[in-house]
Amino acid sequence: MNEIQHDDADLVFHTLKKIEIVVKGQQEKFVCDLLQSCGVTGYTLIRDVAGMGHHGFHEGRLLFNDQASLVMTMAVAPEATIRAVASGLKPLLEKHSGVMFVTDTQVLRLEHFLRKEEAEAGA
Amino acid sequence: MNEIQHDDADLVFHTLKKIEIVVKGQQEKFVCDLLQSCGVTGYTLIRDVAGMGHHGFHEGRLLFNDQASLVMTMAVAPEATIRAVASGLKPLLEKHSGVMFVTDTQVLRLEHFLRKEEAEAGA
Amino acid sequence: MNEIQHDDADLVFHTLKKIEIVVKGQQEKFVCDLLQSCGVTGYTLIRDVAGMGHHGFHEGRLLFNDQASLVMTMAVAPEATIRAVASGLKPLLEKHSGVMFVTDTQVLRLEHFLRKEEAEAGA
Repeated sequence: MNEIQHDDADLVFHTLKKIEIVVKGQQEKFVCDLLQSCGVTGYTLIRDVAGMGHHGFHEGRLLFNDQASLVMTMAVAPEATIRAVASGLKPLLEKHSGVMFVTDTQVLRLEHFLRKEEAEAGA
Repeated sequence: MNEIQHDDADLVFHTLKKIEIVVKGQQEKFVCDLLQSCGVTGYTLIRDVAGMGHHGFHEGRLLFNDQASLVMTMAVAPEATIRAVASGLKPLLEKHSGVMFVTDTQVLRLEHFLRKEEAEAGA
Repeated sequence: MNEIQHDDADLVFHTLKKIEIVVKGQQEKFVCDLLQSCGVTGYTLIRDVAGMGHHGFHEGRLLFNDQASLVMTMAVAPEATIRAVASGLKPLLEKHSGVMFVTDTQVLRLEHFLRKEEAEAGA
């Protein structure tokens, strides 16, 4: 875990990983259950996003009903947690439309993004 | 293209670029056509987002109707593709309200984000 | 400020910081006022996002009314500006539900993301 100490002592940023997942609305529960079972402590959902493509190489424009039913989920956690999420998503994304991206991000309150055990272990 | 081999052999992340574009609703078609013509294989749209500023330096708070009509588009692709998108957007953003950001991101299924030719060339 | 000169001379990307903030709807005004007072020149709001957790370690699933009232705000600015925003948000996030993440991102039109004084100083 990177810890960059800045000049103002009370503003320490910690590097974690952000995962963004876009799936069909009917997979929302699967994704949320997976996030919780992997130890993600919180997430944000944007419902009714539209999507185009990413199901094989050349998918036509989706019907409106399909477009309206996608959900985007964002979660931030330590890399090991995000890897567990990615691993659990892989079979779903191989069978269904959907994408996930993983990005480095920084947070102030590290303990907020750790499971109780991780926080106590000083992860 | 970076390829980071992790400990679990079936979970290889590939570094690509994510572009996020926020424009007025009436430019949605332009953006989507540009993404497809540049070879982006998929994208996600969040409609009805609100925006403030970024049209010159000191724009007043937008009217509700304007706020409600913005659309945010996200796409992930190889750097060359994202540069082509950015290049195509530049004239639009010089004339109209709108912003774009480019961020490093990682994906598992690289072939999903490549055009058929790129995938076959082992890009 | 990093300036990476690419091969096509008119496509220069500048590295800035993106902050993403998720708070309850009733804190939207606080966040927007803070962004402006810190010198952010623009931001994007996604309203009616849902959230789970991140208020202490083990918050139960939020009621629908609470879920529907979250707002996600995104802003891109120089690091010093984003640090001022993060510093101003810290007390709010210590008392209320909410999260913020800071990510490196790149933009084409640097002057668009600077206050007039910063742009003139060639920041």
